[in-house]
Amino acid sequence: MTERDSTRASTIVDGRTVTPDPRLAHYSAAVLADLISGMRPPGRATVPAVRARLDRLTKPRGSLGALEDLAVRLARIYGDPPPPLRRRMVIVFAGDHGVAVRGVSAYPAEVTAQMCRNFAAGGAAINAIARAVGATVVIADVGVDAELENVTGVVACKVRRGTRDLSVGPAMTRAETLEAMRVGAELVSERAASIDIFALGEMGIGNTTAAAAVTAALTGVPADAVVGTGTGIDAAQWVRKRRLIDHALERITTPADSVEVLSEVGGLEIAALVGAMLAAARAGRAVVLDGFISTAAALAAVQFCPHLSDYLVASHRSVEPGHTVQLNALGLVPLLDLRLRLGEGTGAALALPVLEAAAGVLRDMATFEGADVSGPEST
Amino acid sequence: MTERDSTRASTIVDGRTVTPDPRLAHYSAAVLADLISGMRPPGRATVPAVRARLDRLTKPRGSLGALEDLAVRLARIYGDPPPPLRRRMVIVFAGDHGVAVRGVSAYPAEVTAQMCRNFAAGGAAINAIARAVGATVVIADVGVDAELENVTGVVACKVRRGTRDLSVGPAMTRAETLEAMRVGAELVSERAASIDIFALGEMGIGNTTAAAAVTAALTGVPADAVVGTGTGIDAAQWVRKRRLIDHALERITTPADSVEVLSEVGGLEIAALVGAMLAAARAGRAVVLDGFISTAAALAAVQFCPHLSDYLVASHRSVEPGHTVQLNALGLVPLLDLRLRLGEGTGAALALPVLEAAAGVLRDMATFEGADVSGPEST
Repeated sequence: MTERDSTRASTIVDGRTVTPDPRLAHYSAAVLADLISGMRPPGRATVPAVRARLDRLTKPRGSLGALEDLAVRLARIYGDPPPPLRRRMVIVFAGDHGVAVRGVSAYPAEVTAQMCRNFAAGGAAINAIARAVGATVVIADVGVDAELENVTGVVACKVRRGTRDLSVGPAMTRAETLEAMRVGAELVSERAASIDIFALGEMGIGNTTAAAAVTAALTGVPADAVVGTGTGIDAAQWVRKRRLIDHALERITTPADSVEVLSEVGGLEIAALVGAMLAAARAGRAVVLDGFISTAAALAAVQFCPHLSDYLVASHRSVEPGHTVQLNALGLVPLLDLRLRLGEGTGAALALPVLEAAAGVLRDMATFEGADVSGPEST
Repeated sequence: MTERDSTRASTIVDGRTVTPDPRLAHYSAAVLADLISGMRPPGRATVPAVRARLDRLTKPRGSLGALEDLAVRLARIYGDPPPPLRRRMVIVFAGDHGVAVRGVSAYPAEVTAQMCRNFAAGGAAINAIARAVGATVVIADVGVDAELENVTGVVACKVRRGTRDLSVGPAMTRAETLEAMRVGAELVSERAASIDIFALGEMGIGNTTAAAAVTAALTGVPADAVVGTGTGIDAAQWVRKRRLIDHALERITTPADSVEVLSEVGGLEIAALVGAMLAAARAGRAVVLDGFISTAAALAAVQFCPHLSDYLVASHRSVEPGHTVQLNALGLVPLLDLRLRLGEGTGAALALPVLEAAAGVLRDMATFEGADVSGPEST
């Protein structure tokens, strides 16, 4: 059904040659090399030094639980103590999915574009939640199958109008995937100087199908374990979704790299998230993951650059069963468990004040000696 | 060992008559009646109406999980939509415990007063976290065994310098308990007009012992199930703590009311928390509980007025095993699970942005019709 040419730059789908947009022809492995160049392992503060300092602060040892682990992570990224994490940005990458025609979502595909307009008008959940936590929201159209150029509040960086149907062939060419990654990275790089922390979310009808396929391909876990009910599908739709993922996965039993996985079964917003994560980490910023889709992107992104994992913070545990598979693969423990399954960056946004609290503990707390407070009695 | 006179206003401990401070003599059941008078069941918005509205907002039905349940609760308390919950106050009630001499804590008793000075200086965890979430902190000395009158930033409302040792007799007289409740209520009532939401915490070396005893007495659960390691005690201390609680509980196998339970095995800060909760609910404000101590107070407070439970929000699940017993008894599901075991209101403060986010969902989100977004396809 599908062959690739030797440069992996053009693709034959169902006998039809898919020629990449000539504007994209110059993208190649060099894009990727550029994305990960300059990425350093975090470690401005060492773990033992931060742990030792946490133990001298006026609280019983370890009594702030997960907040202490988070404080250590932030100190490694930003230095000890971390600066205030007040300039917060949520970026919602939006893209459509050809596979949506297969009835894998409870919602029609036009909802992606409708929701982009809703985001721009400030009426979606992410707008309400971002406002509550003091974050600005950027909506990036990397692949919506609609004209959104004239919608104020939507950043136009469309790579193409939706992916192809991943159930019958590659969702994207390799060049399109790399371009989406570049666009995502550029969006973050252009803003990183004035932003302390990025929360990364997405919108795309059908994208839990793509994310499930990416997750299965990258972790080796069977599709059963990573296919959920998304926005709310019934049992028959679930079976259809799982079968078509199984079928698509047959094309990538031995993928050359994550770009191939993303091209075959990913999505434009997922590839953009990968680029955004790499760029945020390269700029020395923590990346707050949202749910199942953004964590699928993280699985791909760490393949490009393992150091990235130290910059990631898991915000919440999604209802999607595959999210736990992803978090385990990344070795991340989420901060919140609120039974969310919305996406848009909502969980990531909700976690932002917890990150600032963890940073604040290292920045503002007195030590036992400094505050003249007695330590524990030896028993 | 212990007898009470018929008015339950004075108490004989170990053969010694404990005479209440004459200033407290006028307190009686009238204090309590006053506290709960004017307490109405919430219900400005009805649950079905709020649920129906949530289902029309631009998100898959139920996809905001626990945030939707919280939104319903807030709508019942504040109306639908709830106003912004921006004026946030954490009140830390501090008191000492006579039982601390029995070696039930990892820290010496003087830490209560030292930490009050640390709170006032802004160096404790609750200061750092409250700053991160935009809450002001009030420190109330309701029973610290030290002179704190001259410490700027500590509200002086001491009922007495610490409780008596609950392992040998009543921790407080009935009058002292009622006075601590009144003080807690007054502190909240005086501030409620300019505060949208209260997070209630505490400080008191030895107070997990008192809270465990209160919890066992009010839920009927054996001491084993509610005794934890507090700030970090060893196995021998744990056994001692459990034994002395078992022993103290023998005095209140059939308590007349929650005032008796609080008097026998509670604490001044726990009684103050009870009053504060009742006053906050009476003023129409949600009460954000912290961990094991404040939830013990909630167990007592709902005995006085069952309507209170609708005003309570459980912020986090403490590491203390008895906290889950308490939450189950109150029918509350906590928002966060960060392995905290510090108190001071830290967990309650961390949850405040989540409450504002839930309120914001009802206040700011567009409906499917209003935003011209397609609903789910019928399948």
